[in-house]
Amino acid sequence: MERKDYLQTPVKHIKIDGTLTVDQLMQQFKGSGALGAGRLSSACDIYEKMLKDKECTIFLALSGAVVPAGMRTLITDLIRKHLVDVIVSTGACMVHDAIEAIGGRHYIGGWAVNDTELYKYHLFRIYDIFVPEEDYVRLDFKLSEMYDDIAAQHKGESLASNEFSWEIGKRLSDKNSILRAAYEENVPIFLPSVRDSEFGFIHWLHSAQGKSKPVLQVDAFKDVPTVCNICAKSPKNGMIVIGGGVPRNTIQSSALASKKGLDYAVVITLDRPETGGLSGSTLEETVSWGKMKGQADHVMVIGEALMVFPFLVASVTERLGDFKRTPFLQFDKAGKGS
Amino acid sequence: MERKDYLQTPVKHIKIDGTLTVDQLMQQFKGSGALGAGRLSSACDIYEKMLKDKECTIFLALSGAVVPAGMRTLITDLIRKHLVDVIVSTGACMVHDAIEAIGGRHYIGGWAVNDTELYKYHLFRIYDIFVPEEDYVRLDFKLSEMYDDIAAQHKGESLASNEFSWEIGKRLSDKNSILRAAYEENVPIFLPSVRDSEFGFIHWLHSAQGKSKPVLQVDAFKDVPTVCNICAKSPKNGMIVIGGGVPRNTIQSSALASKKGLDYAVVITLDRPETGGLSGSTLEETVSWGKMKGQADHVMVIGEALMVFPFLVASVTERLGDFKRTPFLQFDKAGKGS
Amino acid sequence: MERKDYLQTPVKHIKIDGTLTVDQLMQQFKGSGALGAGRLSSACDIYEKMLKDKECTIFLALSGAVVPAGMRTLITDLIRKHLVDVIVSTGACMVHDAIEAIGGRHYIGGWAVNDTELYKYHLFRIYDIFVPEEDYVRLDFKLSEMYDDIAAQHKGESLASNEFSWEIGKRLSDKNSILRAAYEENVPIFLPSVRDSEFGFIHWLHSAQGKSKPVLQVDAFKDVPTVCNICAKSPKNGMIVIGGGVPRNTIQSSALASKKGLDYAVVITLDRPETGGLSGSTLEETVSWGKMKGQADHVMVIGEALMVFPFLVASVTERLGDFKRTPFLQFDKAGKGS
Amino acid sequence: MERKDYLQTPVKHIKIDGTLTVDQLMQQFKGSGALGAGRLSSACDIYEKMLKDKECTIFLALSGAVVPAGMRTLITDLIRKHLVDVIVSTGACMVHDAIEAIGGRHYIGGWAVNDTELYKYHLFRIYDIFVPEEDYVRLDFKLSEMYDDIAAQHKGESLASNEFSWEIGKRLSDKNSILRAAYEENVPIFLPSVRDSEFGFIHWLHSAQGKSKPVLQVDAFKDVPTVCNICAKSPKNGMIVIGGGVPRNTIQSSALASKKGLDYAVVITLDRPETGGLSGSTLEETVSWGKMKGQADHVMVIGEALMVFPFLVASVTERLGDFKRTPFLQFDKAGKGS
Repeated sequence: MERKDYLQTPVKHIKIDGTLTVDQLMQQFKGSGALGAGRLSSACDIYEKMLKDKECTIFLALSGAVVPAGMRTLITDLIRKHLVDVIVSTGACMVHDAIEAIGGRHYIGGWAVNDTELYKYHLFRIYDIFVPEEDYVRLDFKLSEMYDDIAAQHKGESLASNEFSWEIGKRLSDKNSILRAAYEENVPIFLPSVRDSEFGFIHWLHSAQGKSKPVLQVDAFKDVPTVCNICAKSPKNGMIVIGGGVPRNTIQSSALASKKGLDYAVVITLDRPETGGLSGSTLEETVSWGKMKGQADHVMVIGEALMVFPFLVASVTERLGDFKRTPFLQFDKAGKGS
Repeated sequence: MERKDYLQTPVKHIKIDGTLTVDQLMQQFKGSGALGAGRLSSACDIYEKMLKDKECTIFLALSGAVVPAGMRTLITDLIRKHLVDVIVSTGACMVHDAIEAIGGRHYIGGWAVNDTELYKYHLFRIYDIFVPEEDYVRLDFKLSEMYDDIAAQHKGESLASNEFSWEIGKRLSDKNSILRAAYEENVPIFLPSVRDSEFGFIHWLHSAQGKSKPVLQVDAFKDVPTVCNICAKSPKNGMIVIGGGVPRNTIQSSALASKKGLDYAVVITLDRPETGGLSGSTLEETVSWGKMKGQADHVMVIGEALMVFPFLVASVTERLGDFKRTPFLQFDKAGKGS
Repeated sequence: MERKDYLQTPVKHIKIDGTLTVDQLMQQFKGSGALGAGRLSSACDIYEKMLKDKECTIFLALSGAVVPAGMRTLITDLIRKHLVDVIVSTGACMVHDAIEAIGGRHYIGGWAVNDTELYKYHLFRIYDIFVPEEDYVRLDFKLSEMYDDIAAQHKGESLASNEFSWEIGKRLSDKNSILRAAYEENVPIFLPSVRDSEFGFIHWLHSAQGKSKPVLQVDAFKDVPTVCNICAKSPKNGMIVIGGGVPRNTIQSSALASKKGLDYAVVITLDRPETGGLSGSTLEETVSWGKMKGQADHVMVIGEALMVFPFLVASVTERLGDFKRTPFLQFDKAGKGS
Repeated sequence: MERKDYLQTPVKHIKIDGTLTVDQLMQQFKGSGALGAGRLSSACDIYEKMLKDKECTIFLALSGAVVPAGMRTLITDLIRKHLVDVIVSTGACMVHDAIEAIGGRHYIGGWAVNDTELYKYHLFRIYDIFVPEEDYVRLDFKLSEMYDDIAAQHKGESLASNEFSWEIGKRLSDKNSILRAAYEENVPIFLPSVRDSEFGFIHWLHSAQGKSKPVLQVDAFKDVPTVCNICAKSPKNGMIVIGGGVPRNTIQSSALASKKGLDYAVVITLDRPETGGLSGSTLEETVSWGKMKGQADHVMVIGEALMVFPFLVASVTERLGDFKRTPFLQFDKAGKGS
């Protein structure tokens, strides 16, 4: 590389004069192009590119406090508009969604509070959000019923985590529910660590009723080939990660196992790479594994996803205008993409 | 609280004069008592207290690059000396262990490297550690054989994740293996997200061989009551967390579901609380849920576990001297604690 | 506090349907109210409140890569519209501004680069921004001339850091320069650590010319009473911090020394509180010192200021519409507020 | 680079069997060599190398809560044993030292406290440390007297920040004081941002007494050539950074301005590089500027300095045994190195 190659693009300074739409500001970030603002504008460009690439399947990894943070409808709308094709999430995220689907609520609170008092009041805290225990209790009853019902319909059959998600979604009536929307729209939701959530603990109750009733069974490994086959069938694969953990790892590893490698990747996280943990690992690192292609469009935005992701969605929504996306893969109720 | 109550303990400054043992330095940290050094010394005190509390079951949560970072023997020794009673980990951690158990190695490398070249050379990178692809390939063959063998022995039976761990451990001969040591010492290893690892992808190969052979089955939910019952049977429960994610959540949620609440907790992490994610959440927050008791001894050490944990173990090992610990719960080969 | 008090404000989920202005999205963040999005919307509310409080003087702390990141014009416009009253910054920030003022540029580059090659090419790197050495060299000559000129005009007199800033600003002609705008608009710029920058190193060159010419003198302590008197004269004081370090500390300490305590505070940072360092310390901590009032409107946004601050400015600009702010204090060319 | 070059050094796993000295554990970290533990062991090796390199001048950058955290005696001992040659620090660090030198104390407290109550009680908080306001008040009186005395001795002369440090040190009698030890041992302490501390605010009081008495004057720029000349005269220069900010920047920039470039560098920090700020910037980045040589021994340890640094000192102290270091530069009371 010659010296002049390093000096191609001078920073253009951001100018805010009167009202701007979100994307007008983002375009300025693109001009300024550097540091955090630049990375966020790259994320928007990459997501837009994924959406307009007719051969790309878009995976969304959801972990952390997505629903308590107020992004539930945002995700539901992405599903209904088919601006994401596959979701990989945690059990907890979907529990939060189910709680709201049956009428529970998350409440704006604070983080500098008396947790012993909250405990006494049966209020659970998620950083600065509160959720009343009774909403969990109500969910427990509903889930137990649903499990009985699902088990009765699938006697002796072990479900995959994505089948489980749709079975729950089918039984929720709230149109704003992520689980419901995904069921209606045939968007698979994989929950590779579904056991590590209220879904797992309720299973204990549900299955403790003795031999009188069939018991819901979930096969830990059954969804593995399904995710991998989605990657394999898609000419291209893209990933947007909110948080990290199991959902990010599952997508990346599936891209590897299917010998495809991701073509696009956006990660929004506050985790750091130095621990060697997956959540903070750089996207460059994934190239060594073949999880992402060396030439993939990719960016890692260092920030709270719960603040950054809505900017990304608003910016891209504005760019899309009337654009209607047709996903490359069409999933049917059997969860198979074709 | 009166003014004087805030001024009870003046900071004593650390004095390093000649050679110190690890615990001699830690005792000085205890005297200084504040900020990071103080938190680390509290962690040592709490772990020591757990070990000497005859009614306490000690859970160790392992996630991240524990084995690549050189802590494999450290963990194995803790298992063999019964200084931990139950391990909850990720599939990936145990895959790393298994790779070394069959003769593979992790190599010290760097983080500012050319990942495209690494890819070309079939070298996988974990921050500044390299692992050759052939070690994974060799593991894949071994695992596939093991799966056949396990499936043949457990025809039609779905395993729990802890049964799976012991079945693998039983088939590894390396005495330094975490999986092997846990099997030999009857220390349960729960892997709530076992699917999200090479264990899951190999299952795909193993199960693709058609109907000619029995297929290993792992039940996603089967380990739930087992972990909860361990909490329930133990008069007290303590937790040490390296990293976060699913392992931490599983322990905390089991303490809640069993209506016990943790009595001791040490978390070592670089994650932050502000995102609302589990890994960085404060231990205070867990009190609101009942996952930890309000009066529990607890501390969160902000640091890379892979640097901090060996100091903690060395310090406590020194304190223990000839002390032999007898765990409250005795596990048999059926994984039941009594 | 009663149980119901904790459950006043359910989270409203963000809805993005078509084009939104920045503030329309921010209003949604306000409704959602929690975690990062909530904190950012609070920051907007607090800044708006500061601006509309006729008795409030607004301090802006600038540190880090503000100019390389493309926020130079943004800051200049805030100065020209009197949406900030006083700036406290680092020498380096103002050096970056001066470099652009004399025709230098910052260039968009990357962080995974060969620094030895950059060194060979005389290109300096600031994370993913490059700046050519010749722009610094050119600045060195200009500054040396300016110092001679300033020294000639202020023979035997030691300048305060804010007098120094205006003397430099007076000699720059670029309308987009922060230093120039501040000079023209009588907005004081305090540089408590001015020595730790190219301004200090050039002073060495300038003063090495022997006794033939007067030498510019800057008194380290002379600006202390000036900042404190601004706090003292203002019925209320507000602070917006980009980054941390000396600029944040100077504002907070001045609020303390003047026995006022801040009434409003917004801090945008990625630093953490656990080290005990100033930059990551919580605003709650400042209350114990009297640096901020216990009842002050305050919020700490965890994020890269270089991404977050433009959203804040865009949102508040939109809210202001035609609103023209008249600062409480009017500074004259002597830098005294009245 | 060939494939086998990446696979030279397999990770050796840490083994803790009985009591270990700090350096015995550190040697194990060296063997394991990777991630955090590896970086810490590199830091020890580099510091040892600096100490044994007869041509190297060692700069120590101190910022943050060094004294409140209990590292005061540690630093003092390093000074008295000439294991550091030059200190660059913040005003605040030296204020904390002076407070203890006149009998004040820092107290171990907590971070989850009622700051409004602390304010009422006149107790200042530094994360989880408390310091009573009366200790500051006492310091204010002492400093004011000292300033009168220093001013009387240096009539009409402006001091450099390092002259100021020694003048204060000379007037403190506490042998454990950093300022006193540095004065006695002729170790220069540079305070490039001395104004941003109680030293600056007390100057206001001291100078407000009218024209009846001479006033202490500190020249903001006077120490610049002194630091640069130290770098220039030393065949090699090494830097150890606790924290970051102005002290780190001053050392790095002096190495640049003197056209030497650092030969050794150890940075301990929790700050991140992505903001573009100096404190979290990588050492690689400094190579592009010429602040550090491309082939310098260097490492960045991600951790709380207040926990990590004592391990480093204990480990290196153990290695040194009876080794007595003779610094390359000998400073006299005029602060000049020869």
